[in-house]
Formats: sequence, structure tokens, C-alpha cells
Amino acid sequence: MDGIIETAKISERLRSQLLFMLELDKLKTVLRRNHTTAMRRENTAEHCWHITLFALILAEYSNESVDIGRVLKMLLIHDIVEIDAGDTFVYDIDGLKDKAEREQKAAERIFGLLPPDQKQELMSLWNEFERRDTPESRFAAALDRLNPMLLNIYSEGKTWRDHSITVQQAYNHNKHMAEGSEDLWKFAEQLIEFAEENGYLLQ
Amino acid sequence: MDGIIETAKISERLRSQLLFMLELDKLKTVLRRNHTTAMRRENTAEHCWHITLFALILAEYSNESVDIGRVLKMLLIHDIVEIDAGDTFVYDIDGLKDKAEREQKAAERIFGLLPPDQKQELMSLWNEFERRDTPESRFAAALDRLNPMLLNIYSEGKTWRDHSITVQQAYNHNKHMAEGSEDLWKFAEQLIEFAEENGYLLQ
Repeated sequence: MDGIIETAKISERLRSQLLFMLELDKLKTVLRRNHTTAMRRENTAEHCWHITLFALILAEYSNESVDIGRVLKMLLIHDIVEIDAGDTFVYDIDGLKDKAEREQKAAERIFGLLPPDQKQELMSLWNEFERRDTPESRFAAALDRLNPMLLNIYSEGKTWRDHSITVQQAYNHNKHMAEGSEDLWKFAEQLIEFAEENGYLLQ
Repeated sequence: MDGIIETAKISERLRSQLLFMLELDKLKTVLRRNHTTAMRRENTAEHCWHITLFALILAEYSNESVDIGRVLKMLLIHDIVEIDAGDTFVYDIDGLKDKAEREQKAAERIFGLLPPDQKQELMSLWNEFERRDTPESRFAAALDRLNPMLLNIYSEGKTWRDHSITVQQAYNHNKHMAEGSEDLWKFAEQLIEFAEENGYLLQ
């Protein structure tokens, strides 16, 4: 069904951009495994907002000097692919097998709604985030680990407990944080210790 | 009750920043009058994510040249005060009377959780947004009108219908968009026309 965006008297460029903006509304319906401190499952849109603010406030802890504007953009868009690909639980071995393929397809479709120059910019930012091979992407990826750990601790470890996650799993999964921020990883290690002491993570 | 942030072996600066980040989680529980296209009420955190992306994608339509990094930051934080002050419906005459006072108090408390330099930066950005006296704040404010209008149209005008909003009210409330973006206001006028034709707004 055609809506007002399709029929409005506007440039084709603006039409593509508005259709993309409308499509993004769907990210608000994608539920993550994580819980907010209000003990309900977090959706990916609100996660993206929260983590982008982590970057704004915690930028000084990046190991390497970063262009904060690029980090903000990267985190704003890092999970848009979940509109099609869904949220893959980080401890779901089967789901992780075809995650890259599913997400690449999703990126092509969703960023492909935009005019070519903007599609290219966002694809490039998203691929950089996935590769973790620049100071900006290493720092962004570190925050993408710190944020759910912190929420897990403040929602009584619910996600970890529900899925019987062990200390070793949490450690292995999160230790790459140190590549983006040694300071924040030092704090995260204390989170894991606290979680172990409180039975949120299994021995 | 003290949590891990209060007791962790970290600098006092990082402790303040983490307590602020945790506090922000509450914005996910503040419900706006607006509905998502999935026809549920939108929360303020997901609104802030969506609108910040509007800025990233639609920056070229700003009347004046803008520092996009500053617009992104401004939109990320523009509604944080709602954690204390709640969402004031834009057509609620009574609620609007003491809105400024309630929000100023909220800004002092919430941004006051941060180290002084960051408190000052965010207070300053937020006050700028409220004043609409710079190119960045005029453009950000225009998007803060376009975004709910678009969602209103694509949720069958539910918020407008529920509150019997008229064409004239919608026009008066949104026309300042033109100060930030004449191009987007031209599109918004078509949205109002469409809403009138479809009975979403009263004559």
C-alpha cells in the first residue's frame, strides 16, 4: 500500500531517505536478550541510544585517540541489520554460524533504501564496526560489551542466569574490550567477579 | 542500596560517569504520547535514537550549514530531563505552564551526576536546544517536529485523534520547522493536508 511518502511532491532523494527513516521504526520491535533495570527485555532501538551515549561520556577511556563523531554514527547504526536478521544471542553457537551472512544481506536491503552515497557511507561504517580494525571500531565494540554487562548486573544477572552462562564464557566473550579500552576492561573484570560472587554467573 | 558501581575500584570520575549511564536506563520507561508504527506508545529513549538518525540522514536539508556532530549530541540528550519531568504533551496547555521550571530542575539533577566539565557541556547543549537560537538547535528542533508527525501519520493519526487535535493546532505547533528546514516543512505541510483528508486531524 502506498503511503504519503510515496505520493508526496518531494525529490526522489528525499523520498528514499524518508522511506529509510520509516523503516527504522521497526528496530523498536526487535527484542534483545538483555533486560533493562525495569526488568523487561530491552529493544534494539533503545539499546542503540544508550550505547551511543556511553561513547559520548566515556570517550576519554579509549586506548587510542578517536574521532568521536564517527564513533557516535557507528553506534547509532551498528544494529540496524537486526530489523531483518534479528538479535543473535552472543552465546548462541548455532545462531552465530550464519550471523554474518544474514546480517550482510540485511545491510544490503536496509541501507539500500538510501540514495547510493548514503548507502555507501553507512555500509562502510557498519563493516568497519564489524571488523574492529580501527581505533573507532575497537572502542565502539568495547562499549557494545560494557553496556549489556552493566545492565545484566543491574537486572540481577537475569539474562546470564536464564541461560546458565559461566564465568569463563563471560570472560572469553568480553575480553576483547581491552583492545578498545583497558580502563573499562579493568572495571568489567570487577563486574564479572561481582557476578560470580552473587551467583549471576556459574563457576 | 550500594551497587557495584559505588564499590568498584575505579576513579571517582569514572564512578560518576557510570552512575549517570545507569540513570539513563530510566528513560526507556518514559512513555510519550506518540505511537510507533506497531501501534504501541513510544518511549523516550527509542525516540531519541530515531530522531538522532533523522539528523544524520537529513542534514543536507538544514537551512543553514550545521556542525552535524553537535546536532547528533544535542538530539541524543535533548529529552533526558524527562526521566524526572516526564513527557509533557505538546498540546497540554496546563502541563506546558511549568514545563520549563520542571525540566530545568531535572537537568540540574541528572546532568549533575556527571563530573563538572561534562555537566557543563551537556547543560549547555540542552539549553541551546531549548532556546533554538543557533543553526544546530533550529535544525534539531525541526526534526523534533517532523519525527512525531511522520509517526502519527503512519499510526493512523492515533495520537491526534485520541486528543481531537485540529488542523490549525497542528499547523501552529509545527510551523517553526521552517526556521530549521524549509524543505522539510514543505513536506510536513503535505503531511498535515493528508491528515486532514483522512480525518486524522479535525477541521
